[in-house]
Amino acid sequence: MYVSGIGKTKFGILNASLPELAYGAMAKAVEDSGIDAEKIEAIYIGNFLGGSFQNQLHLNSIVASLLPKNKIPIVRMESACASGGAALHYALEGMHKFENVLVLGIEKMSDASTSNAAKYIGAAGDRILDQAEGLIFPANYALIAGQHMLKYGTTSNDLALVALKNHENANFNENAHFYGKKVNLEMIENSPMVCSPLRLYDCSPISDGAAALVISRERKSARDVEIIASAFATDTISLAQRNDATTFDAAKRAAESAYKEAGISAKDVDFAEVHDCFTIAEMVAMEDLGFCKKGESKGLIRSGATKLNAELPINASGGLKASGHPIGATGVSQICEIAIQLRGEAEKRQIKGANIGLAHNVGGIGGSCAVHILRGK
Amino acid sequence: MYVSGIGKTKFGILNASLPELAYGAMAKAVEDSGIDAEKIEAIYIGNFLGGSFQNQLHLNSIVASLLPKNKIPIVRMESACASGGAALHYALEGMHKFENVLVLGIEKMSDASTSNAAKYIGAAGDRILDQAEGLIFPANYALIAGQHMLKYGTTSNDLALVALKNHENANFNENAHFYGKKVNLEMIENSPMVCSPLRLYDCSPISDGAAALVISRERKSARDVEIIASAFATDTISLAQRNDATTFDAAKRAAESAYKEAGISAKDVDFAEVHDCFTIAEMVAMEDLGFCKKGESKGLIRSGATKLNAELPINASGGLKASGHPIGATGVSQICEIAIQLRGEAEKRQIKGANIGLAHNVGGIGGSCAVHILRGK
Repeated sequence: MYVSGIGKTKFGILNASLPELAYGAMAKAVEDSGIDAEKIEAIYIGNFLGGSFQNQLHLNSIVASLLPKNKIPIVRMESACASGGAALHYALEGMHKFENVLVLGIEKMSDASTSNAAKYIGAAGDRILDQAEGLIFPANYALIAGQHMLKYGTTSNDLALVALKNHENANFNENAHFYGKKVNLEMIENSPMVCSPLRLYDCSPISDGAAALVISRERKSARDVEIIASAFATDTISLAQRNDATTFDAAKRAAESAYKEAGISAKDVDFAEVHDCFTIAEMVAMEDLGFCKKGESKGLIRSGATKLNAELPINASGGLKASGHPIGATGVSQICEIAIQLRGEAEKRQIKGANIGLAHNVGGIGGSCAVHILRGK
Repeated sequence: MYVSGIGKTKFGILNASLPELAYGAMAKAVEDSGIDAEKIEAIYIGNFLGGSFQNQLHLNSIVASLLPKNKIPIVRMESACASGGAALHYALEGMHKFENVLVLGIEKMSDASTSNAAKYIGAAGDRILDQAEGLIFPANYALIAGQHMLKYGTTSNDLALVALKNHENANFNENAHFYGKKVNLEMIENSPMVCSPLRLYDCSPISDGAAALVISRERKSARDVEIIASAFATDTISLAQRNDATTFDAAKRAAESAYKEAGISAKDVDFAEVHDCFTIAEMVAMEDLGFCKKGESKGLIRSGATKLNAELPINASGGLKASGHPIGATGVSQICEIAIQLRGEAEKRQIKGANIGLAHNVGGIGGSCAVHILRGK
């Protein structure tokens, strides 16, 4: 299977409705693919919080209304922050029936106050076990960070270096939420404490945005990028149900399955877009994906190995942290970035010699995880 | 593909959480199938309003927590009131990878006031075009009923006969929301007006419940029932975007596609479970499915042809109207009923000689529709 078209809106606080965001990303992806819109045979939508933020569910019918000529099956998938990756995975599961399908990831989050947004996002966690005790996501990831520090000697400065790198990368990405924002270590380390040890700059923002992919069974152009593996795994929803808070078993299983399907190992990956909803999540991802041994992500961060054009660039787009995290769009946007890099169209943030890219998209605190691996020529 | 196991909770106002409902239905379906739970390779969940009613999304991870031994992919689908039918359709789309999967439909709706429930259910309609004008679902279906009356001479008494039949059927179904409730025409025709011409008894209730299916690639037992067609279609979301309010193009297209796949025509269907969220919807369904010509459903209703053990029994279970409408569960529950009938296990409501059954599950006012056709021996 091939990514034959990509399209994204700007990520940020946008004055646009859900239908406008959807149309914007889809139109760009279809145009980019060079395929007639009438040739799209099915659409798979990833969206997390349309019901909570806009009281707008049944987004598949909204999208059908935007494409009245296309009498095609459209469905919405939801797997919390992995909704976009889930939509792509299940689209690929259905590709035996179709030649060309479209995957849309979308979220509009700026319609609520910050406290309401935190409550709505909390719906990715267990209502009975966690939400009732106030264990929403900054608190969950703070517990993970605390454990990682205790067990492995990770420091707040390591987290700050992750944030700094991702903000630096986002300044080469015009679609990024924080494009153009000058950020330095002092700002990060002195930013307000959200939930100790996580400060404001350890957290991804509340963003609006959409991203779309045209997926085709056959390669149609030299710009097409091959999807060589797609894996999706689920796990228990609460930290209280896990043996180790510092690793996500769903991510490890999805990665293992994807490496096997692609016939590669972690060391063959040239670059990755990982789910840095919080800075600690990027470090956990590096370990779960096998880029380093457990607890050793700090070494790669400190040496600069994950910066743009170092050994293993991570989140060249700016990641969720600085490119933005319109939740349902994130997993789809990661694939857009990998395709842009593999096509050699990433301009100022182009990773040289990139051939194999990996996308890692997590729901909740690892209750679900999609891993996709893509290859260039 | 075969339905090898079915399981349902009671439908009604239940003192049970979402995880309890899920576990209840799934455990029954797995036990009924005779398959080891460890042999289930994937789960597809239909749920509409977990985010709105319980602030509980990411239900796939909740279900993963209930089955800690099963390290399998689980996803949630949402297509408004067709979420259950969508989950089954997309599960079947993925069956080329699996031997046995489970489909779960679930909803808990009694956690909100009636006015909040109406608002949440309204999320199946267009936020911008319809919700803002108060065009929620009783109002939408009232417009449809009004048009149907004007164009085709359908009367309030026809609608009442639909309600009466479905309540009578539900009294043979112990799991039905209104099991045991004595209902007569006078009660129906004197019930409070909800939105003219629809009275209280024209509307399906707010219900809690879950239903589950084990789907297997191979026939394993004589009780297994074959799925001979699965179709899913989408359409515009608002009546304002349609040429004719009295027909759902998505239902017509899904039915046409399903009949073609099954190699049958409408006249071969022995019985059906159709989406009677409002009584008028059952009449529209009969016409869209080709059981009679457009506008002529009233003739079948008046003659009693759709009663239990008449020519074409419709909603032997009691339908959404009287068996209940826990939204995400509905499309899955319809398949349970068809399997029970085809197995010959429906006891007092058994349809004699039933061999081909059809399920019709609609999202919103026809913004999406799933049609499944099943065959007995």
